[in-house]
Parts: sequence; C-alpha cells; structure tokens
Amino acid sequence: MKQQQPYSGYQALLGWVVREQKPTQVTIELPLTEHHLNRSDHVHGGVLASLLDTAMSFAGLYSPDPKVVRKAVTLSMTTTFVSPAREGTLTAIGRVRGGGRKTFMSSGEVFDDNGTLVAFGEGTFRLRSGSENETP
Amino acid sequence: MKQQQPYSGYQALLGWVVREQKPTQVTIELPLTEHHLNRSDHVHGGVLASLLDTAMSFAGLYSPDPKVVRKAVTLSMTTTFVSPAREGTLTAIGRVRGGGRKTFMSSGEVFDDNGTLVAFGEGTFRLRSGSENETP
Amino acid sequence: MKQQQPYSGYQALLGWVVREQKPTQVTIELPLTEHHLNRSDHVHGGVLASLLDTAMSFAGLYSPDPKVVRKAVTLSMTTTFVSPAREGTLTAIGRVRGGGRKTFMSSGEVFDDNGTLVAFGEGTFRLRSGSENETP
Amino acid sequence: MKQQQPYSGYQALLGWVVREQKPTQVTIELPLTEHHLNRSDHVHGGVLASLLDTAMSFAGLYSPDPKVVRKAVTLSMTTTFVSPAREGTLTAIGRVRGGGRKTFMSSGEVFDDNGTLVAFGEGTFRLRSGSENETP
Repeated sequence: MKQQQPYSGYQALLGWVVREQKPTQVTIELPLTEHHLNRSDHVHGGVLASLLDTAMSFAGLYSPDPKVVRKAVTLSMTTTFVSPAREGTLTAIGRVRGGGRKTFMSSGEVFDDNGTLVAFGEGTFRLRSGSENETP
Repeated sequence: MKQQQPYSGYQALLGWVVREQKPTQVTIELPLTEHHLNRSDHVHGGVLASLLDTAMSFAGLYSPDPKVVRKAVTLSMTTTFVSPAREGTLTAIGRVRGGGRKTFMSSGEVFDDNGTLVAFGEGTFRLRSGSENETP
Repeated sequence: MKQQQPYSGYQALLGWVVREQKPTQVTIELPLTEHHLNRSDHVHGGVLASLLDTAMSFAGLYSPDPKVVRKAVTLSMTTTFVSPAREGTLTAIGRVRGGGRKTFMSSGEVFDDNGTLVAFGEGTFRLRSGSENETP
Repeated sequence: MKQQQPYSGYQALLGWVVREQKPTQVTIELPLTEHHLNRSDHVHGGVLASLLDTAMSFAGLYSPDPKVVRKAVTLSMTTTFVSPAREGTLTAIGRVRGGGRKTFMSSGEVFDDNGTLVAFGEGTFRLRSGSENETP
C-alpha cells in the first residue's frame, strides 16, 4: 500500500514508513537507529510522541480517492510511557475514536518487535479547511 | 554555560541546544530547518513534544557538580498546540513544579522568535537510581 | 462579583464558587468537606480535575455583557497532581493561553490555603454555536 | 462481587458503584442524576474524569485477599471527550497497561447505556507504601 500523504521534512528526518492506511486506522513503522536514542540509550520520548502524533492524525485522514490529500492540525496530545525500547522496528497504530465534521479524537499505541507495549497516547485534531468529514 | 547532560543521538538528529540550566528551570533552543516541518510546512507536533519532553526533564536534573550527570525517565507527558511556527529559532522552557525524592512534575512552554506561545505541556518524571533528590 | 454563568447541578453538588471572572482568567474556590475526600482522606483526583475543567473553560467564556451567557465543550484536558490536600479552601485559576474563533486552549492551577500548588492542568475547548470569539 | 476498596466521601457524593474487580481491570457504574450535569445539561467533564481516575486507579489495586486493601496516588491523568451523555447509567472500565513494583499505567473508557464511547483517558499511578507489586 502506498502512503496517501506526501512526505514531509520531518518524516524524512525521523524515517518512519506508513505501512497500512484504513478508513479509521493507520499503522506506521520506524526502524530504530542510534539517532532515535536518548542519553540512556533508550528511544527518546519525543520519538514516541512523534510516532503517536503521526499515526493518530493520519488515522482520521483516510481518503477513498488517493489523489485527494487531507490534512489536520493537532490540538492536543498525550503520551504515557510504559516500557523502554532501543532497537529493532517500532510499530505505531492510530485509531479514530470519535469526532464530527471538523474535529476527531484518536488513541494510539506503539509496540516493539516482540509485541510489547512501549507507549500509548490520545489526541484531538481539527481538520483543515477542505478536509472536513462529510458525516457529522 | 555548558550543557550538563551528555549529548544523545536524538539531540544530534533534531539539533537543539541547551541554553541555560538553573536548579529548577532549563532553557533549550532549536534553530528550525525544513527537516522539522510537516506536510503543511509547519513545525511537526512531534518536534514540539520532543522539545517539551527534553526541557521539562532536564529542569529536574540540575546538579551543582557539573561532573555528576543525573537522569530521569518520562512517565507521561502532554502537549497543547497553540500557534503554528515554521522558521527562526524555537525556545523551550521547562520548570519543575513539584515532586519528591524519586519523582518530579514539570510544565513547559515553547515560544517562537517573536515571543509567541507555540505550545505548552506538562510531564511526570521518575529519577533513575542514583539520581534521586536529597530533600523529599 | 457575580458569576456570569448560570449554576449547574454539578456545581451545586461539588460546591465551588466563582470568585473572579476577568476577560481571559477565572478564579473559583471550593470549601473542602469530607465529601471531597478519597479513601486516604485526601482530596479525590476527580475533584481537582473538576475544578480545573471548570476554571479553564470559564476562562474563555467572559462576556462584557452579563446578560450574555457563553458556553463551551471540553475536547480534552489533563491533570498533574503535585501535592495532597485535605482541608480548608482550594483556589483554582484558569487562564486562556491561545485559540481562535471557535476553539481556545487554557492552563490551570489549584492551590491550597497556604498557596501550595496542589495540581495543574491544561485543556482544549470548542465554543458552542453562538458563543464564538469575534477576533480570530 | 463486593467492592474491595472501602467507601470514600467522594464516592458517596458522586454515587458510583464498583461492578467488577479483576486482577488488571475494573468496571464501575454511575447512575446519572441532574447533579452530574453541567449548564448545558450534559454530564460535566469533571464527572467523567472522576470515573476514569477511579476506574484506572482501582484497576491496579486488585488483591487476591479481600481483607488486604491496596492504595495508590494518581500522578497524572488525561481525558478526551468524545460524545455527550445526559441520562441513564455510565459504565467506566479501567485497564492496567504496564508498570513495575511502585508505579503502573492505565487506560480507561466510559460508555453510555447504548455502548457509545463517551470519553477515554490514561493515567500514571504510584502505589502507596505497603501496596507495592510483587513482580516488577
């Protein structure tokens, strides 16, 4: 499956890949390198927050027409850190949990190669003008 | 002032600099490049969360002896996004708001070059073994 | 100063009082009773979250005309708990930190009688139809 | 099933009931009255945060011996509001998602009578002295 969203400078910097994009759920993956680690050689909290923000946002931006690119602004997000990670590939799954024409709410989880929960979070998003949902 | 904490791979990747480190407050700066931007050419939410996590954590890790490096684990953090940014230098300030021997709580703010509030957040942190606070 | 907002059933149940309502800042107070305590005889986290939600929301609902009642919906909120409280009067202060015509973001703090920070939080709010801000 | 935790003043005030308490999951219910409503006659955000805080905390406090009461302190919590509710009975489910000997992290959801998701959240908790987990 191809990524519906165009690439951004930050995606290129961090290196995540969109693996699957369904109507209300998105899976992205990040192959870890030493550039994702903090001073304790664990994945930096900011990396995990970045993956969650991306997966939770993209989850609400599915478009049946791949030529139509939809965008949203993150209003707020949270991250709870459960287990440290340092190598392999991280998988982040974002799911839409509710919303209306102009806003949506998502939850997200990040897992390591063993399926261990590394972090989870939630976010609220506002759809940009032209990207609104049809059904409230 | 020199940075008390050793550099990490993620700091090298994102490019922030520790500007000031006081007993319960830390200021870091990030000169923005196109690699910090999302698909709408605004600073990615994950960059702002990364700056807040770092500033809020470092705020609780001051050491009067520069040879002593203290470390903490982020338990949870939040970010509220107020205003988009896309160029110049971001300044993130983290402040300790409370805590005890093994945990502390911080709040943080990110400003752009004009002093406009870009994002703010809060976090809870656990001090690593050997880095505990002396006074409860 | 009179409270601009009409009383609700939940305000009657918990017992807070609006002490001051300024254009972007609101102060409310709660005289503590045993009904606000948890099993450890400290103020329940839900009480603190309730005060923060109320103060942060009201902070964005000031009206120069006291006959005009404005309303908002909370999209998300967070609470960080700093210090336990159990008696006296709690004071919660909510401040608007940003926003536009239809949404606003606030931060809030709760203090005890000694001025000790008990909890702090942040929230995002959507103004109800008819309550929008004039200036984006 | 009987509630393992002793009743608190706040539980008596709000009126929730512990419906089920399993090793890492707790279900509580709240029959709604007008005292749980805000000025728009919807359930106040503070009520939903209170239910989530309680369910997420209790989820980590299971004891195989009903005579042993375990306690925790909430370090931080978040709530995302999805859908308004105003009548019937709310059901809040808290689940432990990770943790160690002294802390744990939970997520929680609140549903209305129709099974519609009303709110969800996450929290970090510190076990009180004497209530620590045996296995890290």
